[in-house]
Order: sequence, then structure tokens, then C-alpha cells
Amino acid sequence: MTQNVILILTTVPDSEAAQKLADGALNARLAACVTELGTVRSRYHWQGKIESAEEIQMLFKTSAARSLELEQFIQANHPYETPEILSWQATASAAYGQWVTAETQRPIHV
Amino acid sequence: MTQNVILILTTVPDSEAAQKLADGALNARLAACVTELGTVRSRYHWQGKIESAEEIQMLFKTSAARSLELEQFIQANHPYETPEILSWQATASAAYGQWVTAETQRPIHV
Amino acid sequence: MTQNVILILTTVPDSEAAQKLADGALNARLAACVTELGTVRSRYHWQGKIESAEEIQMLFKTSAARSLELEQFIQANHPYETPEILSWQATASAAYGQWVTAETQRPIHV
Repeated sequence: MTQNVILILTTVPDSEAAQKLADGALNARLAACVTELGTVRSRYHWQGKIESAEEIQMLFKTSAARSLELEQFIQANHPYETPEILSWQATASAAYGQWVTAETQRPIHV
Repeated sequence: MTQNVILILTTVPDSEAAQKLADGALNARLAACVTELGTVRSRYHWQGKIESAEEIQMLFKTSAARSLELEQFIQANHPYETPEILSWQATASAAYGQWVTAETQRPIHV
Repeated sequence: MTQNVILILTTVPDSEAAQKLADGALNARLAACVTELGTVRSRYHWQGKIESAEEIQMLFKTSAARSLELEQFIQANHPYETPEILSWQATASAAYGQWVTAETQRPIHV
């Protein structure tokens, strides 16, 4: 038996921003696990020019029930004006999927 | 013409575990290619606390026909009690998709 | 409101090849953003043996309207004979999705 998990990808300017965003999402139980994928080189169009920047890529794992709230949290707490927030659905192994669901239960008293 | 390839993501504690898992999957023809994505920082809920650990992230590429067996292989050979095993479907370029299918053919005599 | 963005994953032999492929795709407006994910270790079946190589992994972000052309561009400009080109659809935050769509508009005069 399998369960669905939502993966959400974003990039932040540095490791400090990554830790802050990860801790905020975990404390609010909007994600069960957040992976900081290390430094990447991004090249992109911005205001008519091609820019290049070093960034930190992050991958959040959450339940389908909490994924919209997590997106809103990232949008509201991200240091960029137009952050990259990309989500897709994955099939999880049963035990891992159950763990993600359990760890992202909305707290009863908040 | 395109073909589907299944991507399976997992994380292991270190590079030695990554190599062992990759070699096992390749030798059993359960994957055509395994990418070791380098060291990542994982933050996650575990038994009531937020933990943080350095891990190695891995991405397996296999055919739809073999993906369930690959998941079972990872589950059985993974050093963690509740490993992250997340899979999703991607569209492959024709030549690459054909290569994945060919390289993950079940051996006739095993 | 959300929009779809296409993610395309490929691996190239080195950072120079990554920059060339990224710049070509960006200049042709076939991608809004290209991320160079750093050095990875790939293990794979090739001509009857298990090979291992260090490579650079890249992730392109484009619109659904331009994704097929981007795949063809990568195929035509990639240094490998059988490059890995894997694409899947993600849901983007509204502002990011609009930015990807705007930046990958086909130029009127080319």
C-alpha cells in the first residue's frame, strides 16, 4: 500500500535563509522533512538580462492535506519577491507516507 | 516518440551506503542509472523532536515495469528503519527511454 | 491561482558544458531558469558493464508551450550520444508561473 507525498522545491539565497525557512515549516508542522540540497548555480532571465547567482536549493516533503498551506508559508516567509515554488506529487513507500501524514497533522491547540 | 521513466528518490547516511545500494540495484538490473547527488542537510520530525542530519541523496532511474521491484529492493536493503522512498513518473527522450527499458530487462536465467 | 511549469532534468560532463547548454537555452528563450546542481556521481549500465562517472546535473524550468522545443534543443546541443532528458510537470506559485510563461515567450522577430 502506498500513499502520496507532495514535494515542494524552492531556492533561497543562502544557508541561513534555508535554515530559517525549514525550521519555520517544521515548527508549524507544514512539512515532515526539509532537505537542503547545497549550493547550486542558477541562470535566469530577469528584467531583460540573463543573471547568474549562487543559491541554496531546498526540497520540502509534506502531505497533500498540508501542501497548500506550506506553499503559502513559503511565499509569505521567503526573502525573494518572486520565489520559485514548484510542487509535484510522488508515491511514497507505505511507512514513509504514514510518517509524513502523522508528522504534518495540524496541532489541535494552537 | 517518448517513453516513461520512473524516478525514485531516497537518502542514505553516507557515500558507502549509497554505493552499496546503487551497485545492488544495478547488478539486479532494477535500475539503468543511479545518481548520487552529494551531501544534503535534512531537517525532520522524529519522535517528538526536530532532528538534523547530513545525508546523501540518491536518484534512481528505472522502467515502469521494474519500479515496484526496485522500491522493494531499496526498502529491504536500506540502512534506515523508515527510509524515504519517493517515486514519480517522467517523460524521457526516446533514445534514453529505450536505453532504460533495455538495461532493466529481467535476466532470463537467474 | 496556479500555473504549470515543466521541469527538465539532464546531466552533462562538466561545468563548461552546463554553462554552454544553459546559456543557449536562455538566449533562445526556451527556459526561464536553469539550475546547475553541482557534481554528482552517476553509476549506470553501458555496453555490458557498470560504469561510474562524475557529472553535473542540471534542472531546466520552462513553460508547457516551450518544453518540447527545449527537449529538442538539449538533444541537439548535448555532448552525449544518448543524453538523459527527463521531464515532468509541476504546479507553480502564481507569480513564478507567470514569470516562467513571460520569459519563455517566443520572440516575434528572430
